[in-house]
Amino acid sequence: MTDSVSRLHAAVLDARRRDPGLSRTARLARAGVPKMAKKLAEEAVEVALEAVRGRRQAAIEESADLVYNLVVLWAGIGITPEDVWRELDRREALYGMAEKLPKRPAARIAAL
Amino acid sequence: MTDSVSRLHAAVLDARRRDPGLSRTARLARAGVPKMAKKLAEEAVEVALEAVRGRRQAAIEESADLVYNLVVLWAGIGITPEDVWRELDRREALYGMAEKLPKRPAARIAAL
Amino acid sequence: MTDSVSRLHAAVLDARRRDPGLSRTARLARAGVPKMAKKLAEEAVEVALEAVRGRRQAAIEESADLVYNLVVLWAGIGITPEDVWRELDRREALYGMAEKLPKRPAARIAAL
Amino acid sequence: MTDSVSRLHAAVLDARRRDPGLSRTARLARAGVPKMAKKLAEEAVEVALEAVRGRRQAAIEESADLVYNLVVLWAGIGITPEDVWRELDRREALYGMAEKLPKRPAARIAAL
Repeated sequence: MTDSVSRLHAAVLDARRRDPGLSRTARLARAGVPKMAKKLAEEAVEVALEAVRGRRQAAIEESADLVYNLVVLWAGIGITPEDVWRELDRREALYGMAEKLPKRPAARIAAL
Repeated sequence: MTDSVSRLHAAVLDARRRDPGLSRTARLARAGVPKMAKKLAEEAVEVALEAVRGRRQAAIEESADLVYNLVVLWAGIGITPEDVWRELDRREALYGMAEKLPKRPAARIAAL
Repeated sequence: MTDSVSRLHAAVLDARRRDPGLSRTARLARAGVPKMAKKLAEEAVEVALEAVRGRRQAAIEESADLVYNLVVLWAGIGITPEDVWRELDRREALYGMAEKLPKRPAARIAAL
Repeated sequence: MTDSVSRLHAAVLDARRRDPGLSRTARLARAGVPKMAKKLAEEAVEVALEAVRGRRQAAIEESADLVYNLVVLWAGIGITPEDVWRELDRREALYGMAEKLPKRPAARIAAL
């Protein structure tokens, strides 16, 4: 398992079981899904704002926060990175890796 | 380069050069950073809402959108996945993989 | 009822009952709370991004969208503008109109 | 000036000039537009999440935070409530109060 996100996911699963007094991840796990969901959206807003402000280094730091909080939320609702790659792969098979699959059949024609 | 996010990043860099009439990624690249930033935040909100609603499959699909739009934004502002892993690694060295580094020295004490 | 937000709220309540084929508000009402909630968060992100970009006129337009979608969501979950003013008034009585009431007693001391 | 939002706006303008050590509004004013923009988006996410969770009272409280932070941001970039009502009125004249004006002429046909 050399994949970066998979390593982070495994570390998060492990940290969830630690002492909430010592581990931020354990505290988030205990705080529950709405708290994790809120943190995820907040970090995405921060990445977005830093990107628009042209602050590349800050965008990197906020991206690290975003990736961390995304994986924490995945752990909180039983999603694995593999579930997400499988979804990305499914779209790749249909449209090429970097092409997002429109969800509604009607919109699909417009995208092609 | 077997890392999932790195593969997606390479595919996005490639797709940016395609015909905007055929490629969603090329259209986003042309639309500019504010548009990409907006899409990123929107997808994070969708993941957050689906997570809170307990809709696991929808959260997987929106997570795929989020990861895609994050990598598109990174490409738009010259960030590589390696930049972000380096930041995560820097925090791991100090706090352990899944522990987020507080940015302000003052807050650091509270987290430990 | 000369209050701007109250007028908008009354108009939204009225529009909710119209033909969804003709009224955007009726379509949103039919789409349900998660859709309205998503729209609200998206419009707030747009106001935030336009503000940071220094685009005042665009921020005004997105603010109009935000206020509209906020009132639509209030209508969707049975909140009236008066409920929100009452909450703001409650905080004003304690801290002065423009001072936000910290929610946790512990944080209250730090804010004062 | 009996309008609720106008009263809040006037109070915020006043509080901006106070001692940042005593006034949250003055601290936000000093922190700058990106910080105000971030707070706005965060509060909108909180309203959205509470709405989806069906927590009406929490949604009222977060709505009060949202309205406050919206007015603080307006003050920070020189927008008045009247600017926003004027934009809503402009749309009302064209579409009726509660009908949002599509920004692109092309989309306008679809909305009608």
